[in-house]
Amino acid sequence: MTYSPTPRTTPTRYRERARYDRDTVHGIIDEAVICHLGYLHGERPVVLPTTHARRGETLYLHGSTGGGPVLAAAAAPEGLPVCVTITLVDGLVLARSAMHHSMNYRSVVVLGAARLVTDRAEKLGALAALVDHVAPGRSAETRPPNDRELAATAVLALDLVEVSAKVRSGGPVDDPEDLALPHWAGVVPLAVSAAPAEPADDLDPGTALPAYLAPYRRR
Amino acid sequence: MTYSPTPRTTPTRYRERARYDRDTVHGIIDEAVICHLGYLHGERPVVLPTTHARRGETLYLHGSTGGGPVLAAAAAPEGLPVCVTITLVDGLVLARSAMHHSMNYRSVVVLGAARLVTDRAEKLGALAALVDHVAPGRSAETRPPNDRELAATAVLALDLVEVSAKVRSGGPVDDPEDLALPHWAGVVPLAVSAAPAEPADDLDPGTALPAYLAPYRRR
Repeated sequence: MTYSPTPRTTPTRYRERARYDRDTVHGIIDEAVICHLGYLHGERPVVLPTTHARRGETLYLHGSTGGGPVLAAAAAPEGLPVCVTITLVDGLVLARSAMHHSMNYRSVVVLGAARLVTDRAEKLGALAALVDHVAPGRSAETRPPNDRELAATAVLALDLVEVSAKVRSGGPVDDPEDLALPHWAGVVPLAVSAAPAEPADDLDPGTALPAYLAPYRRR
Repeated sequence: MTYSPTPRTTPTRYRERARYDRDTVHGIIDEAVICHLGYLHGERPVVLPTTHARRGETLYLHGSTGGGPVLAAAAAPEGLPVCVTITLVDGLVLARSAMHHSMNYRSVVVLGAARLVTDRAEKLGALAALVDHVAPGRSAETRPPNDRELAATAVLALDLVEVSAKVRSGGPVDDPEDLALPHWAGVVPLAVSAAPAEPADDLDPGTALPAYLAPYRRR
């Protein structure tokens, strides 16, 4: 399955980096810890980091009912125009020439109109998915949201329709005439790594560390 | 030195997480490998991941002269309204309750009008800074941009005036009545880590690995 490119999801440069297949897009969304949400506050762009979760072909975000994105969505009955961008940095690409320096990365851009979730079951499912995005199964090992918490928290839903990924991998691409220069060239692989989990100060020392934290892995 | 809060850089929630001191802001900008640039394409928000560099109180970004942000800036003689957001994820915060799950993070939001850099010396300095942002001193060990490359690449400058940081650290904060629940609670520290540098396939095997790559560190 693939998403259909649109003018807005067709890059003007490096078209060979574009990806529209669902597996690539889902893989990036599911691996990333956070996303960056862009929306308009008045006529000005705002970009906020936030957590996300995917259920099928819908991306969910959440926020305080008094926060900027939720207020903007509440004022947009047709849906709030947003751009959600998710980026994984896989490495630094060092070339012999300054201008061929690059990054290895995998990114997804989702464009569309985000809607406030009003159905209680969908909202509870989305909030559980946001916790499970951190660690699969975690939501079942927590105290679920109560009515007060549900009233203070809004969930935004964005369908995965106008979606594209971009992927760069591999080594530097220097101009042929630069290959003999004496500068080191190559890739420094980067990844998000987890240190051992640190129990809360007030945790009963007898509480077992869940399997999904021993060790924690993102991929 | 501190930046002056404005209505747009004063959070509506978690005000205790806001920071305006220059050292905190500069530290986050300088540590982050990438930023997310938000701007308007027509009336719709667009968020793109890109690299950045700071020189004093100016943030520099770059892009193809045919790319979206540069075309938008060229069409905005008063400067292109942008929001540049930089986020470092320091850990997952797992609480006994679903809704007290959180992240430890350090983020910076820069609001303002980005201008296209037209001065050649400033442009060359910014492009060198973008390379040095990856590894200090690296720009002096590369072939500098030539006229063709300079003509194909634009630099955007954004002054650090309307700026704020947000920082969350520490363990989970559960409600008192949840403390006796049997669920594990604590923090999983996350960080960007580098694997050993991988030389390019076409690199002369006699080329020494620069000191800044052995090992590479971001902080």
